[in-house]
Amino acid sequence: MAAKDAEGRILPGDRPRRAGEEESPDVWGFRDSAFTLRPDGTVLFTGTRYPVSGLELPDLLPWMRRVLGVELPPADTHDSQYPPDIAPAHHNPGLLRELAELLPEDGLSDDPEVRLRHGHGHTLEEMYLLKYGRLERVPDLVVYPESEAQVAALVAAAARHDACLIPYGGGTNVTDALRCPADEERTIVVADLTRMDRILWIDPVNLMARIEAGAVGRHLQAQLADYGFTLGHEPDSVEFSTLGGWVATHASGMKKNRYGNIEDLVLDLTVVTPLGTLSRPAVAPRESAGPDPRRWMFGSEGTLGIVTSAVVKIFPLPEVQRYDAVLFPHFEAGVAFLHDLTREATPPASVRLVDNLQFQLSRTLRPRATGRSALQRKLERLLVTRIRGFDPERMVACTLVYEGSGSEVRAQEREVRRLARRHGGMRAGAENGRRGYQLTFGIAYLRDFVMRHWILGESFETSVPWSQVLTLCERVKRRLGAECAARGVPGRPFVTARVTQVYHTGVCVYFYFGFYHKGLASPLETFAELERAARDEILRAGGSLSHHHGVGKLRRSFLPRIFSPAALAWSNEVKRAVDPGNVFGVANQMLGAESAGRPLD
Amino acid sequence: MAAKDAEGRILPGDRPRRAGEEESPDVWGFRDSAFTLRPDGTVLFTGTRYPVSGLELPDLLPWMRRVLGVELPPADTHDSQYPPDIAPAHHNPGLLRELAELLPEDGLSDDPEVRLRHGHGHTLEEMYLLKYGRLERVPDLVVYPESEAQVAALVAAAARHDACLIPYGGGTNVTDALRCPADEERTIVVADLTRMDRILWIDPVNLMARIEAGAVGRHLQAQLADYGFTLGHEPDSVEFSTLGGWVATHASGMKKNRYGNIEDLVLDLTVVTPLGTLSRPAVAPRESAGPDPRRWMFGSEGTLGIVTSAVVKIFPLPEVQRYDAVLFPHFEAGVAFLHDLTREATPPASVRLVDNLQFQLSRTLRPRATGRSALQRKLERLLVTRIRGFDPERMVACTLVYEGSGSEVRAQEREVRRLARRHGGMRAGAENGRRGYQLTFGIAYLRDFVMRHWILGESFETSVPWSQVLTLCERVKRRLGAECAARGVPGRPFVTARVTQVYHTGVCVYFYFGFYHKGLASPLETFAELERAARDEILRAGGSLSHHHGVGKLRRSFLPRIFSPAALAWSNEVKRAVDPGNVFGVANQMLGAESAGRPLD
Repeated sequence: MAAKDAEGRILPGDRPRRAGEEESPDVWGFRDSAFTLRPDGTVLFTGTRYPVSGLELPDLLPWMRRVLGVELPPADTHDSQYPPDIAPAHHNPGLLRELAELLPEDGLSDDPEVRLRHGHGHTLEEMYLLKYGRLERVPDLVVYPESEAQVAALVAAAARHDACLIPYGGGTNVTDALRCPADEERTIVVADLTRMDRILWIDPVNLMARIEAGAVGRHLQAQLADYGFTLGHEPDSVEFSTLGGWVATHASGMKKNRYGNIEDLVLDLTVVTPLGTLSRPAVAPRESAGPDPRRWMFGSEGTLGIVTSAVVKIFPLPEVQRYDAVLFPHFEAGVAFLHDLTREATPPASVRLVDNLQFQLSRTLRPRATGRSALQRKLERLLVTRIRGFDPERMVACTLVYEGSGSEVRAQEREVRRLARRHGGMRAGAENGRRGYQLTFGIAYLRDFVMRHWILGESFETSVPWSQVLTLCERVKRRLGAECAARGVPGRPFVTARVTQVYHTGVCVYFYFGFYHKGLASPLETFAELERAARDEILRAGGSLSHHHGVGKLRRSFLPRIFSPAALAWSNEVKRAVDPGNVFGVANQMLGAESAGRPLD
Repeated sequence: MAAKDAEGRILPGDRPRRAGEEESPDVWGFRDSAFTLRPDGTVLFTGTRYPVSGLELPDLLPWMRRVLGVELPPADTHDSQYPPDIAPAHHNPGLLRELAELLPEDGLSDDPEVRLRHGHGHTLEEMYLLKYGRLERVPDLVVYPESEAQVAALVAAAARHDACLIPYGGGTNVTDALRCPADEERTIVVADLTRMDRILWIDPVNLMARIEAGAVGRHLQAQLADYGFTLGHEPDSVEFSTLGGWVATHASGMKKNRYGNIEDLVLDLTVVTPLGTLSRPAVAPRESAGPDPRRWMFGSEGTLGIVTSAVVKIFPLPEVQRYDAVLFPHFEAGVAFLHDLTREATPPASVRLVDNLQFQLSRTLRPRATGRSALQRKLERLLVTRIRGFDPERMVACTLVYEGSGSEVRAQEREVRRLARRHGGMRAGAENGRRGYQLTFGIAYLRDFVMRHWILGESFETSVPWSQVLTLCERVKRRLGAECAARGVPGRPFVTARVTQVYHTGVCVYFYFGFYHKGLASPLETFAELERAARDEILRAGGSLSHHHGVGKLRRSFLPRIFSPAALAWSNEVKRAVDPGNVFGVANQMLGAESAGRPLD
């Protein structure tokens, strides 16, 4: 049993265990997990961590060949040259001395690979450069503070010694938000917060917990569950991303229908800034009291300060958790179902809709079926295609996660069935639902796998009002097709969309995009042009710059298209006012960038 | 039928009608509505607007005498001297010339009473000074812009001519937020937004509407209802307050369980500021894109700019609306019921719990019962007190408003009944529920009524975690009792609390406080000391500075108790950066106040 304080709050005290959880230095995810290709063309997913782990996937490669229209010989690999050439650290001796005194002995590192890892956040370009090129500028020093006081001393030292300080959580932003500005001449120190990962207290009566900002999603989930609670926040990156990172990127969780997004979950923040520490003695359920630190920090992407801890809402673990899946004859029917579900009912914790191509992909990630299960699959297919008349090249799937009390879940299930029927839906069962929901975590490993086979892939997302969902998806696919053709991209691009979040006024659409690049003169440039074209098309189609990934440096050149000059001026003036020395010089959203006047990216 | 645009959005076009809705210049509310006292001691509420309108209330005065422990002779009145002495307008001729060109002929006023009305927001002190003293500083000019362009020109002109500009919505802030800084030597211009009150468009598919910021709650409700929609936002001030005012004060609505508070409802804002107009070309359901104007404006209390319009969520009018009321033997049982309702069920749109004193007050506001209804009332009382054994001096009431689909409402009703039973609750019927919910609007007129009889009254509110609710209410009552006794306040103070909002982690508590002041040397000073003592006790008991009223100037001296110095420094630096000339010099939250370095209030 954990200790309790005078107010009856639980004091877990201990830090989460991390044994056997080593991450790969050069590709996404855990070292024990990866897609690999056998010479016979069968794909295998290693490890035991995910539903897809340990599976032989005979259908994946043939399907990829068909979709991309390229041959993909298993032996023709584009082998990683990791580690790349890494520039020597540019040290600031005064600062280094001060930090060495401030931090424990193992609290500083200038190991090149450690520095490299702390200078990227898994964008396609970053990962490509890690393997086949080099990052122009990487951090000079990585430090691991263990307390708010150490962070405060660190910020003060960085300001005094004119260094650039960049906070680091899980390193999974996918927006170039951790990428070092190439023209940064000061020493760049990255503050890795992951040693500040404790749950400081759990208030079981008022359903709040104070948690250090470096707490990683998967640990935080497990620790809260030990006490019967959940935060309910599950972004796709939950295995690696941190509480502080969620605040800085304005994250969204897959179960936000029940638990809310990060701005709904965070009740208070403590933040170390160049002007001092933003903090409060008490946490109110809701208030109107002016200068709330939360408003500054959501989406600040490391440009304003370092979040050291947050008070969050917690929820008793749900009485019931159930998965389900529903097939629809086409994407239009699925979107209409989601729209009605949002207007007429209380949607389950998570509702997601994949388009036909992604549905096909998920099928190729099922294990080889033999004997009875092969027969059953055949029968199911017959039922769906012959009897229900679904077209395998058009049908789509919706996965649902229900969480709540027995009666809440039953009521939601009734509504889902009623509305699914209205749109020609057909139930595909709990097992498919669970697999569909969990697949996200496995798919994240696909990008590095296919990169070895000359395919560049990336995900990107947007939010868009209901009336524009179909048009937006269609326009982005068409635009990318045309842009690829115009550039002589071999074969056909792979573009697939899913609706991952539903809201009162619209949805989040999440795209995967990939293409075969062997033979292209400048694959990275081509990729960047295509990604930019996709974003341009999204904005033209009424979509937002980002639903939850953020702006970082990847999308900052689009800011003038979505904000008036005065809105951008406000951001810049605020940044200048609260960080006059540009200590937090990571230059996301162009904030504090010397180059603010130069043509953008 | 209203016109539609190319995107299928409804264009209502017309401005709301305002005939027969004149407001009182010197007291709260509409001219046609007021409590009056007959020589025989019977109270009458005039007009036809509210459930309490037209009623003779024989029990109110006797009850007040008993509670306050003072005699209150009907003829002993403290008569209003309104209008008070109003200082002549201090004109800035250059600015005046420019504004006269910019605005329509009837778009400027320096009428003394108009200026006076635009320089207060119904705090006790303000109302007292209106009737029995004078406001030290009032606005010099009131202007009525009719478009965003006029507002932009107005802000630019104010900056150019070094004037102070104060935005005005409904004038109901109750925080001295509109009160002019006594030491402001510049010309003070108040921008009354109420001519910008149109619904610009309604998007029936994506459930959004763009509405001008001067739209008054009651008009906005009626107009949206014409098209089958509601915003669902019902603060106590909804009859008078405006959309822009809700944003500036960070307002909360009584039905927030279903519709959310203002920060949940507003999707986008257009704001004219000294750096230009903050605006966006598109409105996303949710996004992560950095410099969102909303974050600056919620709770900004007129210190940063003028909100000209907002895009808000709208909701189809609910299929079902039902009221209900439940009696509980005591406040503790009622709070326990609310807590369980929040944890175990989906609370109805509105759930409110009044304490025993407020329950008694509501009884005195019922009409005289005769014949059958008198008999029924007697029988009910017997049932409650004799059979159920409720103590009339301890029992409390909870009012509920259900809105939603038939099945949603039925499910919520089932949960309410189940949990009410658990805590010894007893249903008191729909009619009592409706009366209880509507009573808020009538009670608002009580303060000016009793002021004429030497009673000073005020409301104040806080939010507090669940575990502290009972303690906080008790401590505030005890503290005010002790402080009144120490000051020789005649009789006993009236202090009553209700829980008006429930949240995951706590509630909003709303207090009414009053005392008889005849014979006190400095009633206003005594009142201010008592109000300050109450706030001190709230903070000590774990409550917040404000749940939804805000800070204004009334509570700004408490800011250093709830924010770290750095958090306050951030606010000041931001204000300086985006409004370097302090055009928005209303000095709420001390922002931009020259006196920032002086001892506070």
